[in-house]
Amino acid sequence: MNIGIYGYGNLGKGVEQAIYQNEDAALVGIFTNREPSSIKPFKQDAKVYSTNNLDNFIDKIDVLIICSGSANDTPKISPELVKNFNIVDSFDNHAKIFEHFNNVNKNAIENNHTALISAGWDPGLFSNIRVLLNAFLPNGKDYTFWGKGVSQGHSEAIRHIEGVKDAIQYTVPIDDALNKAKQGSIEDFSIRQKHKRECFVVVEENADKQKIKEQIINMPNYFEPYDTEVNFISMEELNEKHKKLPHGGHVIRNGFTGINNNTKQTIDFHITLESNPEFTANILVAYARAIKRMYDNKDFGCKTVLDIPPALLCKDSKETLMKKMI
Amino acid sequence: MNIGIYGYGNLGKGVEQAIYQNEDAALVGIFTNREPSSIKPFKQDAKVYSTNNLDNFIDKIDVLIICSGSANDTPKISPELVKNFNIVDSFDNHAKIFEHFNNVNKNAIENNHTALISAGWDPGLFSNIRVLLNAFLPNGKDYTFWGKGVSQGHSEAIRHIEGVKDAIQYTVPIDDALNKAKQGSIEDFSIRQKHKRECFVVVEENADKQKIKEQIINMPNYFEPYDTEVNFISMEELNEKHKKLPHGGHVIRNGFTGINNNTKQTIDFHITLESNPEFTANILVAYARAIKRMYDNKDFGCKTVLDIPPALLCKDSKETLMKKMI
Repeated sequence: MNIGIYGYGNLGKGVEQAIYQNEDAALVGIFTNREPSSIKPFKQDAKVYSTNNLDNFIDKIDVLIICSGSANDTPKISPELVKNFNIVDSFDNHAKIFEHFNNVNKNAIENNHTALISAGWDPGLFSNIRVLLNAFLPNGKDYTFWGKGVSQGHSEAIRHIEGVKDAIQYTVPIDDALNKAKQGSIEDFSIRQKHKRECFVVVEENADKQKIKEQIINMPNYFEPYDTEVNFISMEELNEKHKKLPHGGHVIRNGFTGINNNTKQTIDFHITLESNPEFTANILVAYARAIKRMYDNKDFGCKTVLDIPPALLCKDSKETLMKKMI
Repeated sequence: MNIGIYGYGNLGKGVEQAIYQNEDAALVGIFTNREPSSIKPFKQDAKVYSTNNLDNFIDKIDVLIICSGSANDTPKISPELVKNFNIVDSFDNHAKIFEHFNNVNKNAIENNHTALISAGWDPGLFSNIRVLLNAFLPNGKDYTFWGKGVSQGHSEAIRHIEGVKDAIQYTVPIDDALNKAKQGSIEDFSIRQKHKRECFVVVEENADKQKIKEQIINMPNYFEPYDTEVNFISMEELNEKHKKLPHGGHVIRNGFTGINNNTKQTIDFHITLESNPEFTANILVAYARAIKRMYDNKDFGCKTVLDIPPALLCKDSKETLMKKMI
């Protein structure tokens, strides 16, 4: 399958690397809004083009993977690009997924293309697991815990505060709630009981640290509902210790079966990632494979991860999967 | 959806209970080879019929769930029953799944029915997880650990030894290998390094315990490749402590991403079941829902869990799933 990458930030870099891990995938080109010569791909022979040239690649790209900024750009870009391409995006604003789906679906159907939105690990892999576990344990309760890992959105929110030069924010699950959930609890936990937030902040010389700390911990939605720890550190320390992008999390579902609903069944799906964007990128490439297959089968329109049969994600044949994986 | 249960052992009992947990499912009847009046369902108003009466229910059952003995009966029964019904079975002889698939598929296609084979948690849920994780981490290694839990096949094998009145066998993962896998190892473990077997055996009066023990631990395939512990206990103790059917296990995949394949990504899917047949039964009912929907959509033939989009397993609409679960 011939893949194009739209946007070359952390996720786009991850997709380039993921393509090299999948022998049935080839990179047609990286498309950027920046000056193409300013982009340095991992492989020297990888082609970089301006997004203005995309129209020349309509028949050369099987699937275009959208790696633009999810929150603001993807909702505008995906519905446009799906007019000319099959696409996969990782739109992650859970509250607006249905709206985004409808926008992409309309244009996909009108132009006989196939699209997948909101792939990645959450939304994405975790969504898939939540749905499986809800279907298999209808009488139960599930929990999603995130971290320990870097939240780009929360880090960015801190960076916008006056006097802040740079910042990294870790989302951290709280052991007490996590352990109770893993042991089969079905109690409700508050937002504050499930996660805490740890911030590492570099400030301008002479900045008012106390004021900055107050602004962080009282920021509505982002930090106010959580216990938040603020650490002021040097730029050197930030660059040395906090520039990787680890993440991870759990989807846990605890349920009861049996005629009296008193047989306990406990399920814990746990991922530990040294690199969030590299893992997300590998997921996008697997879904690109599925989307190409659905397109080849004239199954047009917008899909979510919940519409994809698992077999379409693997390069192996149905027979091989039956013999080796089932 | 109107469901029939074919066979009423532990799994059939689990399916009856599972149907009551799913508000969109109704039990048409339990079909048995035994004398119907000898069957005591959990609910008094549940109907029990002889399997000889099945032909009278061809238009009344949306999906027939096959709960016969998997190893010997299901390979003969499923290809026959799919001529008249949509079916779901839990055939679990991994080495013969492809052959079973072909037998069921031929008759399903010829008779415009839809079938799903080899559902349950392994094969089934674990197969689905293995395929997802292989697709998302193509450069890696996965491990499946089973237990601690009762293996019906191994218990039965002990019961066939002369002088044995009853027996229960637990498959137990070995902590050292399990912990290494959970921590991201990609080393190979031998069969003996991954699992051990614990047997609780009740013998006839004056039986030669030493000889029975030798017969167990040297039994090819079943016990010889493992370290096996044999405990002789009384029938009272067996009935009191070992007549539940707990099980569980892990699917672990450890992989590497990045241009140099040195970014570690670790995934652990872990289930802990107080009742193996009750959980398996709930999975079968969820797949029955998917099979009815595929049949209604004229998608005939034999399927495996790898062919089922997750959304078809849940009773909620696509819109609800997008708003609540993705």
